[in-house]
Amino acid sequence: MARLMNTAVEELKIKVCEANLKLAASGLIFHTFGNVSGADPQADLMAIKPSGVPYEKLKPEHIVVLAISSGEVIDGTLRPSSDTPTHLEIYRAFHGIGGVTHTHSLYATAWAQACKDIPAFGTTHADYCNGPILCTRELDDREIKNDYEVHTGKVIVERFKGLNPLDYPGVLVASHGPFTWGKDAMDSVHNAEILEYLARLASETLKISPGLNQIKQALLEKHFTRKHGPGAYYGQPKNK
Amino acid sequence: MARLMNTAVEELKIKVCEANLKLAASGLIFHTFGNVSGADPQADLMAIKPSGVPYEKLKPEHIVVLAISSGEVIDGTLRPSSDTPTHLEIYRAFHGIGGVTHTHSLYATAWAQACKDIPAFGTTHADYCNGPILCTRELDDREIKNDYEVHTGKVIVERFKGLNPLDYPGVLVASHGPFTWGKDAMDSVHNAEILEYLARLASETLKISPGLNQIKQALLEKHFTRKHGPGAYYGQPKNK
Amino acid sequence: MARLMNTAVEELKIKVCEANLKLAASGLIFHTFGNVSGADPQADLMAIKPSGVPYEKLKPEHIVVLAISSGEVIDGTLRPSSDTPTHLEIYRAFHGIGGVTHTHSLYATAWAQACKDIPAFGTTHADYCNGPILCTRELDDREIKNDYEVHTGKVIVERFKGLNPLDYPGVLVASHGPFTWGKDAMDSVHNAEILEYLARLASETLKISPGLNQIKQALLEKHFTRKHGPGAYYGQPKNK
Amino acid sequence: MARLMNTAVEELKIKVCEANLKLAASGLIFHTFGNVSGADPQADLMAIKPSGVPYEKLKPEHIVVLAISSGEVIDGTLRPSSDTPTHLEIYRAFHGIGGVTHTHSLYATAWAQACKDIPAFGTTHADYCNGPILCTRELDDREIKNDYEVHTGKVIVERFKGLNPLDYPGVLVASHGPFTWGKDAMDSVHNAEILEYLARLASETLKISPGLNQIKQALLEKHFTRKHGPGAYYGQPKNK
Repeated sequence: MARLMNTAVEELKIKVCEANLKLAASGLIFHTFGNVSGADPQADLMAIKPSGVPYEKLKPEHIVVLAISSGEVIDGTLRPSSDTPTHLEIYRAFHGIGGVTHTHSLYATAWAQACKDIPAFGTTHADYCNGPILCTRELDDREIKNDYEVHTGKVIVERFKGLNPLDYPGVLVASHGPFTWGKDAMDSVHNAEILEYLARLASETLKISPGLNQIKQALLEKHFTRKHGPGAYYGQPKNK
Repeated sequence: MARLMNTAVEELKIKVCEANLKLAASGLIFHTFGNVSGADPQADLMAIKPSGVPYEKLKPEHIVVLAISSGEVIDGTLRPSSDTPTHLEIYRAFHGIGGVTHTHSLYATAWAQACKDIPAFGTTHADYCNGPILCTRELDDREIKNDYEVHTGKVIVERFKGLNPLDYPGVLVASHGPFTWGKDAMDSVHNAEILEYLARLASETLKISPGLNQIKQALLEKHFTRKHGPGAYYGQPKNK
Repeated sequence: MARLMNTAVEELKIKVCEANLKLAASGLIFHTFGNVSGADPQADLMAIKPSGVPYEKLKPEHIVVLAISSGEVIDGTLRPSSDTPTHLEIYRAFHGIGGVTHTHSLYATAWAQACKDIPAFGTTHADYCNGPILCTRELDDREIKNDYEVHTGKVIVERFKGLNPLDYPGVLVASHGPFTWGKDAMDSVHNAEILEYLARLASETLKISPGLNQIKQALLEKHFTRKHGPGAYYGQPKNK
Repeated sequence: MARLMNTAVEELKIKVCEANLKLAASGLIFHTFGNVSGADPQADLMAIKPSGVPYEKLKPEHIVVLAISSGEVIDGTLRPSSDTPTHLEIYRAFHGIGGVTHTHSLYATAWAQACKDIPAFGTTHADYCNGPILCTRELDDREIKNDYEVHTGKVIVERFKGLNPLDYPGVLVASHGPFTWGKDAMDSVHNAEILEYLARLASETLKISPGLNQIKQALLEKHFTRKHGPGAYYGQPKNK
């Protein structure tokens, strides 16, 4: 049992290190900004980048592993990312998620700073998100002063009440920046790239047509269901 | 006869694969977005990228070949691009076209999302297009729900009623993105690059002068006819 | 005498080819857009890029040499750039200029399309230009229809009536794009890069402060004379 | 004593040369724009880039060393940067600073030209600056005409009256551009990169939400103190 757990921990550290290096190579981050975590929810494990370590020096042995349920460090000697409590809240509340990425990427952060949802202005957006990319409410002063990173996670979870987070690539935290998720760490990095492109595309669209409305509901659903769910016909059949 | 057909099919697959790789290298696409087709209208053949296949793995044997007239697959084992019916409608209606490219490139897509024609704000535009770059009308709900990709092709064709599509590098599909065309697959990729530059240039111009009008008709015609048609005097004589 | 002339011609072709390749490497041009000429006014010679030849294939033997006074081709078998008459008008009117560059670079062209002077919004601009970067008037229909490229040169010359063109890195032709000049072909390419940066900087400034005025006259003069003229104290003394 | 001084001078020249080369590689500068200095305040030494020397040719022996107190050249044969008196004013007034960088980087300069403070629109900003990035007042005509570079330093110092300059990565000089500082020359280059990113992020935010206010004071303080001061918990403990 201990050996099995050990293997799961080591595999997760390797995958999370790779995903952090992929993020660093993506151009979405600047200096030490940003972090990626990966989870093995059945094993109650989350692995995350250590705080403030330059990406060019990052190795699997630097990755910190924690128990999702308790938040206790299981493996690693460095201090985990200061955003760790936010990642934990997301894994605890959203089922089916195996990776979370946080960046301060330019356009997604600009929308987050504007405290605005990114409207679905076209089919590129609809291919990835069944509605606007949502922005959380702002935290109140009490939430900022005590357990700030926990409350950041809680306003994310609150925003998806009654919604399926898997229909979205991620979320914008008001006055802060994007968190994205996916089936594993690498998939959450991919969604960080997608979200940045959608944010930039929406900004450029708004400059041409400042009062534009979201696309028709029928078009939104058509494109989302073309790629997602039982009727999807984009890409190759899965058994190919 | 069968052998001749075979050769035409294989040549088209190679050219269409090359044009898709050129598109991937152009910076206009993001992940698996976008697709290029090429046609041999005399032989009733169209070849197109398979759906959702990463560009870095694309080889001629992956390209799918269809009959333009019937839309039936003639060669290839993968599922063709989900936009295939749109490409077929364009080849069926527009004569003299041997290639079509579809992208979600940033600035052209922003104009498409804004549902606006790109005005001819200067001579750079006039060098390539004898008037605004046109945007289609939006599809209605019935057109979206049934045979969506066919109707996307039909609104493109409808937009050019009474116009010569060869006077334009391509079109913007409302709420969606650009389709460009050319004498072959590679030429349609070139026009995708041109259209993106014209779209970006128009956006930057609009930011400086929000209410700007199209350039004078005389200047538009001067630049277009300097490069196109019997009086052209740009470039070297064809027999050089 | 003939041999001396021959040497002058060959040297000019090499320098103009190098300057065109530098322009191609600068990122300011797109496909075959743009051209650079160089002149030896004492020898009545101007050398210019041939029309529509891809930069990657350009060699000194492709460069076309003309007499400034008559516009007749002296050397070269290819057709010169279609903008040749514009370059000739500039050399005929402006003394002390040995190179001219024409581009459709993004931000400078956006200002030209907006038909607006670029105001001197800061000291970066003042380091290179003793006032706004000027935009010509629009050509009238008659000027467009007959000898279009000659009239393009004439509106440039008209714009500098009473001004010293050497106090400016170049000009914007309304609805068209920038022409820059310098002491030789390479210097005019350098000024094309400077002008593009100043144009972009002005655009970004305008987005933050839409109604901004030009900087104080004293600051404009201070920075221009810090780098230019008898009181200049920027850089190293010339005899170093 | 003379030998010790000699070593301090040589070390400073190497560090300042490295920091200037780092700045050149950062993409923040254009041609010969920009300069970095480093200081050893205990030894009364400041080393700075020579004026108008191309970065690709810069070597430690070109760096000019001056006495901070008197401004006299102690070492070096080239003319120091024309902005030297501004750097000297900063070192004289702000204690704890060992490096100063001046650039004309695009977005920071656009804000400086707009003569506006950069508001703290989000936590990315708050991670680096405990309030807006400040812009100086404009110089008056007398200050421009006499000892211009000294007065540029003086309006910077004036702007921080009653504030701690170490709580800021730098300043915007109105109608001019940014000066940043840090614990040494390299750190001031790092802050030039940070400032440019914050300026760009603020510009993009403003385009989405033109009338946006600064973030809540509680959030500003939370993020700044998370990274700076006695309660900081970002990064690894210093003894690691």
